[in-house]
Amino acid sequence: MNEKLIQIGKNAKQAAYKLSLLDTITKNQILNQFAEKLVANTDQILAANQKDIDNASDMPAKFTDRLKLTDQRIKDMAAGLQQVAALQDPIGNIDKGWQNDAGLLIEKKRVPLGVIAMIFEARPNVTVDATALTFKSGNAVILRGGKEALNSNLALAAVLRAVLKDNGLDENAIQILHDTSHETANDLMHLNKYVDVLIPRGGAGLIQAVVKNATVPVIETGAGNCHIYVDQFAEEQMAINIIVNAKVQRPSVCNAAEKLLIHRDVAKKMLPAIAKALQDHGVQLRGDDRSREIVPSIKPASDEDWSTEYNDLIMAIKVVDNEQAAIDHINNYSTGHSEVIISNNYQNGQEFLNKIDSACVYVNASTRFTDGFEFGFGAEIGISTQKLHARGPMGLNELTTTKYVIRGNGQTRK
Amino acid sequence: MNEKLIQIGKNAKQAAYKLSLLDTITKNQILNQFAEKLVANTDQILAANQKDIDNASDMPAKFTDRLKLTDQRIKDMAAGLQQVAALQDPIGNIDKGWQNDAGLLIEKKRVPLGVIAMIFEARPNVTVDATALTFKSGNAVILRGGKEALNSNLALAAVLRAVLKDNGLDENAIQILHDTSHETANDLMHLNKYVDVLIPRGGAGLIQAVVKNATVPVIETGAGNCHIYVDQFAEEQMAINIIVNAKVQRPSVCNAAEKLLIHRDVAKKMLPAIAKALQDHGVQLRGDDRSREIVPSIKPASDEDWSTEYNDLIMAIKVVDNEQAAIDHINNYSTGHSEVIISNNYQNGQEFLNKIDSACVYVNASTRFTDGFEFGFGAEIGISTQKLHARGPMGLNELTTTKYVIRGNGQTRK
Repeated sequence: MNEKLIQIGKNAKQAAYKLSLLDTITKNQILNQFAEKLVANTDQILAANQKDIDNASDMPAKFTDRLKLTDQRIKDMAAGLQQVAALQDPIGNIDKGWQNDAGLLIEKKRVPLGVIAMIFEARPNVTVDATALTFKSGNAVILRGGKEALNSNLALAAVLRAVLKDNGLDENAIQILHDTSHETANDLMHLNKYVDVLIPRGGAGLIQAVVKNATVPVIETGAGNCHIYVDQFAEEQMAINIIVNAKVQRPSVCNAAEKLLIHRDVAKKMLPAIAKALQDHGVQLRGDDRSREIVPSIKPASDEDWSTEYNDLIMAIKVVDNEQAAIDHINNYSTGHSEVIISNNYQNGQEFLNKIDSACVYVNASTRFTDGFEFGFGAEIGISTQKLHARGPMGLNELTTTKYVIRGNGQTRK
Repeated sequence: MNEKLIQIGKNAKQAAYKLSLLDTITKNQILNQFAEKLVANTDQILAANQKDIDNASDMPAKFTDRLKLTDQRIKDMAAGLQQVAALQDPIGNIDKGWQNDAGLLIEKKRVPLGVIAMIFEARPNVTVDATALTFKSGNAVILRGGKEALNSNLALAAVLRAVLKDNGLDENAIQILHDTSHETANDLMHLNKYVDVLIPRGGAGLIQAVVKNATVPVIETGAGNCHIYVDQFAEEQMAINIIVNAKVQRPSVCNAAEKLLIHRDVAKKMLPAIAKALQDHGVQLRGDDRSREIVPSIKPASDEDWSTEYNDLIMAIKVVDNEQAAIDHINNYSTGHSEVIISNNYQNGQEFLNKIDSACVYVNASTRFTDGFEFGFGAEIGISTQKLHARGPMGLNELTTTKYVIRGNGQTRK
């Protein structure tokens, strides 16, 4: 194990202890100073970013677009920090409290997790967005971003760390790994003594690599093979509106719909209009034989399609015999993110809500609502597709844990 | 990866789906039948257990005592099943519900985790106790017990599985690994596709091995290097009562106190009486130089003592200069289980509660209260010393997760 990394772990743990004792007013003041100083230091941040852009000249435009910072993007990050400052602080909340049989007063109190590590790709905005949420929730953060964004990440973190220092706080509440090697990332996944949770952010490959390797607790986010099932009691225009919104509005994100299942009794009637609406928005359709008999312009889907998250203007369609077939298909192929039934039948809606094993299950709404902001959390660190600790959109509350605070007057156990 | 184990994982996942749809009345009926049939099959269970006892003739008495089943122990397991049947079912509870800005009705609903795996030592009662809680909370369980208890575990599970079969339910809700090799245990720790959480139960060695190896989500339980700090405002008799209770009542368990810290201003006055009370109960004392100057019968403590969980009638004592020194010592050496301050000073009590980073933090009560039954949960699967998902005593609620159930009327995202 890398000695430098162990030192970073120790530093983070110490900083987390101090952070856990800060009151909300102080944390909010710091967040607002973060915002102010980022804007004030725009020139030096952009200069550092330019180095990264120059080094990435061989990369595709999509990649450099994510990497690139601008005046406006720095202002957006600053606005994000101010928004987080305005959110309610979960720390100190009492989830529940009671008196036990021996007369002890027991409270379950919200406290920070401690040290949060994040591994992410070459998107420098994550440095600031993640720090806003971890800092507000009283956690120290260790950030390991993509190597192509290292200069940008270090420049951003330098501004934030200077604010901490100027306020007499521990700079190590925010640490960037300078060493972006795979070996060090792997060591970070095994830093059990210091890391309370590791949250990978990025594509499916990154997240699966972390889940497969890490021994520190991981929260798995962002895999979204989302389904919409149109049953025989669906209203056609509602179905079209929801499907188009879920597929087309922002196809690259995890809450976009990827698959359409439709009941055989309405496929002949509704599928042509649904397919046309999607195709009019540039969506390429793939499907099973039954869907292709109805709409010949649908290309054949392979077995692999059913488990693929396209993140693109592609949708695969399957005609099903009944609701149970739809449910079985979804529970088998889904990543457990978000699934929708479109139906006006009470019983069918209830069955779908009960039987689908995903983080978010909908009747008659777009998958695109699976989002911390849309849910009203005011922030989002990611969307958990695992079942432990957090499931679905994660806001500030999901970056906390609890401890039991117990007040007695001399009780001993009988 | 072991093909048989993959099949066990698939079977468990399928059984979990069916279990998740059972209503509480049915689950309670089955739990009561489990109890009845265990007692009715006492003879064959004891015969199987006798084989294990015969095979373990070389093992120490402590080991065979844990392994041995008797009429009474089978009745106790049956009573445990009936108690769990009587507990409130957490499944279906709505933790919170609200309407978002777009008019969606969002509910956060309690659902089973799915498949719970347990690795435990040669204690056949765990087979029944764990099954009671996993079944009641709607989860399928895969049990890998110590190889020395295999015949007993299989006999117990056969009775439970027969009850499931007789009721037309899926027997694979309860599966025992026949193969107790380390290789298969290791494969189980990597069965990410089918295991939603792995809970090791046993000694520190077993738990650390699981935490270090597993890639499935783990809940770490039961490591308890618990501290009591007597400050300068403590009432002497209360201190003695609590310390003796916490150390002596049941020294082998994780919520027993292992360390005593005492403020220098009261050490001279209180330590002799505290030490005598402990020694009168057969406790061997170890300590730092300052404690040994006051009570010469205290043996010297080594550095290793401060991080050791004795699980025995041993206690290590340290004199500290102030509360912060006590807090720093505890946060450094503790396993994060349970810590106590004995004090009548308001400010000191508050500081201790705020600054100690453990699952349970007490003022003026015994560490022995950290227990699902004492907390009023009516059951306990273990005491979590990690921060993710569950922290402190784990009852039925901690064996569940949530899903968001969302009802709309055609909403699409703007």
